Amino acid sequence: STCLTWSIHTPRVINAEKSEFNEDQAACCQISIRRREQGLEEDEEWLILCSTQFLTGYYWALFDGHGGTDAAIIASNYLHYCIKQKLEEVVGGITEARPPMHLSGRCICDSDPQFVEEKHIHAEDLVVGALENAFQECDEVIGQEMEATNQMGGCTALAALYFQGKLYVANAGDSRAILVLEDNIVPMSCEFTPETERQRIQHLAFLFPKLLDGEFTRFEFPRRLKGDDVGQKVLYRDYFMEGWGYKTVDKADLKYPLVHGHGKQARLMGTLAVSRGLGDHQLKVIDTNIEVKPFLSCIPKVNVFDFALHDIKEDDVLVMATDGLWDVLCNKEVAYMVRSFLAENRTDPHRFSELAKCLVFRARGKKRGHQWMLDDSHEASYDDISVFVIPLHNRAED
Amino acid sequence: STCLTWSIHTPRVINAEKSEFNEDQAACCQISIRRREQGLEEDEEWLILCSTQFLTGYYWALFDGHGGTDAAIIASNYLHYCIKQKLEEVVGGITEARPPMHLSGRCICDSDPQFVEEKHIHAEDLVVGALENAFQECDEVIGQEMEATNQMGGCTALAALYFQGKLYVANAGDSRAILVLEDNIVPMSCEFTPETERQRIQHLAFLFPKLLDGEFTRFEFPRRLKGDDVGQKVLYRDYFMEGWGYKTVDKADLKYPLVHGHGKQARLMGTLAVSRGLGDHQLKVIDTNIEVKPFLSCIPKVNVFDFALHDIKEDDVLVMATDGLWDVLCNKEVAYMVRSFLAENRTDPHRFSELAKCLVFRARGKKRGHQWMLDDSHEASYDDISVFVIPLHNRAED
Repeated sequence: STCLTWSIHTPRVINAEKSEFNEDQAACCQISIRRREQGLEEDEEWLILCSTQFLTGYYWALFDGHGGTDAAIIASNYLHYCIKQKLEEVVGGITEARPPMHLSGRCICDSDPQFVEEKHIHAEDLVVGALENAFQECDEVIGQEMEATNQMGGCTALAALYFQGKLYVANAGDSRAILVLEDNIVPMSCEFTPETERQRIQHLAFLFPKLLDGEFTRFEFPRRLKGDDVGQKVLYRDYFMEGWGYKTVDKADLKYPLVHGHGKQARLMGTLAVSRGLGDHQLKVIDTNIEVKPFLSCIPKVNVFDFALHDIKEDDVLVMATDGLWDVLCNKEVAYMVRSFLAENRTDPHRFSELAKCLVFRARGKKRGHQWMLDDSHEASYDDISVFVIPLHNRAED
Repeated sequence: STCLTWSIHTPRVINAEKSEFNEDQAACCQISIRRREQGLEEDEEWLILCSTQFLTGYYWALFDGHGGTDAAIIASNYLHYCIKQKLEEVVGGITEARPPMHLSGRCICDSDPQFVEEKHIHAEDLVVGALENAFQECDEVIGQEMEATNQMGGCTALAALYFQGKLYVANAGDSRAILVLEDNIVPMSCEFTPETERQRIQHLAFLFPKLLDGEFTRFEFPRRLKGDDVGQKVLYRDYFMEGWGYKTVDKADLKYPLVHGHGKQARLMGTLAVSRGLGDHQLKVIDTNIEVKPFLSCIPKVNVFDFALHDIKEDDVLVMATDGLWDVLCNKEVAYMVRSFLAENRTDPHRFSELAKCLVFRARGKKRGHQWMLDDSHEASYDDISVFVIPLHNRAED
């Protein structure tokens, strides 16, 4: 029912040929959300067929797998279906200017519209809620599927949805999406790692100490402590602290820290480099019976960009990429490459996918002897690298 | 040892004469932090006396009491002492350019300085940590004191500390501090209410459903549900949602919501309008045995302003006030009043305290018949109103 004018590019998932397997997965598709006319009963079949209308969404997603590719593959096959389902469940509210208190449209309390208005609830909030619920549903499905088939592993998930004039970016993990516009860069996600989510993770350990099974300390120290530190006052922080303090070290503090390491080396229970994502239901700390899953979250943070409030130019794009890219290139470097590449290749019909390829090869670097190096002779990315470049101009008006 | 050049004004705590008791309390003082020379033993008494040095901090705080003034009074007498204590505990680290891994200065691991640097730990972080710990300590003391004397109630706490060239503002509750500078307004706190902390509160109820004792639902709805809603799909959100969804109402959803109401009417368990503060250890939901304290937090969020990075002008001030002011005046209105008042009263030596008084009277409004009205004929504040106006120019250099 809607004309698709927003180009969808073949996923540019490229393994830098440095590891045996590429654990990244990508997906993109059109999502058709069935909208039923109000008041029809399930059994009025031919009426339903005649009156069914569809709303169209466009979807792109990247999944960075760990401990195997299984979770990433299931997620890439299933998340868009969960999103479609969750949007269909609330579609009656999305198509109203202001979602009604009751999905049926029936008004039980005269002041219902006023209550909804006071809470500032808009159609946009239903899409955000649908995305949050879809990630949770997808995580459950992955858990059941992997248990049934005895598969292992998990993945991060970064999903973009263009729907009714707005771009929604839902992120659980350490991938990243940015908008590169003519005169500014708009971050559309933030990273969830054991470092950025330290306080949430430590707090859970404070509330449920049994989750650590006596093997970990919930305190953070600048380095792993050793016997010589016992009795000394060393720098530390607990779940409620953004600042630091000094703590007299006792023997229990010598245990392995729940969150340990710095930057890309930060690990949750010495095991995982991300704190949100899908899967990992069976993941245990090596050689123990300690589960990691209770500390993980599958809930995405959703950011919304309203195209109606911006004048979108021909070279404006959304760049989505796994951490393989962002480990070696910052937002500014990517934006510079995007702008110069698109300005130089204005007539190439494949310029957006060429740009994605160009970004991947730039982050992969060049082989010099045994090492992969960037142009500026810093070390290149050894991780899998996946990039989407999605033009924002000439998108479907629906 | 330091010359005090930053004027400290008498607290301007003014009850608007609308209620019988003023539950606001204020405190301000100089805090002397004893700094001992390294390597002296406790028993070398005369040496300690000779070599003791002091670092000076300047402290202002506002406490907005509820359920009585007891907690606010204890906090106003005790919080600065907790802060002094916590700062003295880490003073050996604060006076270093980079805090050492070990408070003793002894270096157990050669790369300790590098670990501290990698974590980006600065003296400032020790002050933040000391403030976080001081609030927690003060809350414990209030709990003990009030249990021993059979007193009731709690209070919000907003504390400002000027120390070593930086301004630290620690806030737990719904008071607010802003910097009014020549050409911009810098918010130095954010409010903690059942509405702003909904997700934290709902999550706790999800983790420990027993805390609700079967009397509350953790779900948020736009209004209190009633019998007619059962079986219908209504707008709701759970702890993990920033967006909204539709939920089929069952009988359990008719219970009173954990967080209910909107804006200034939002209440935690129908009882409290704030979600952070000190005290309330004995507080129970009326006519039940359900404790409110588990859902409250005494941990402040600390914001830091570094004077070295700004060119402070003669009329630049810090405005601290309880919610009585901010309920009726926004940041911009307050900034406008600050700038015009100070420009018009340049020679008055008491102009800062006069300005504080002026702000209080403006928010109190004027009595017209039975109502108190603002100049623009909106309703005035019925709450207690307390305001500090603290000049930032000519502060002590220490």
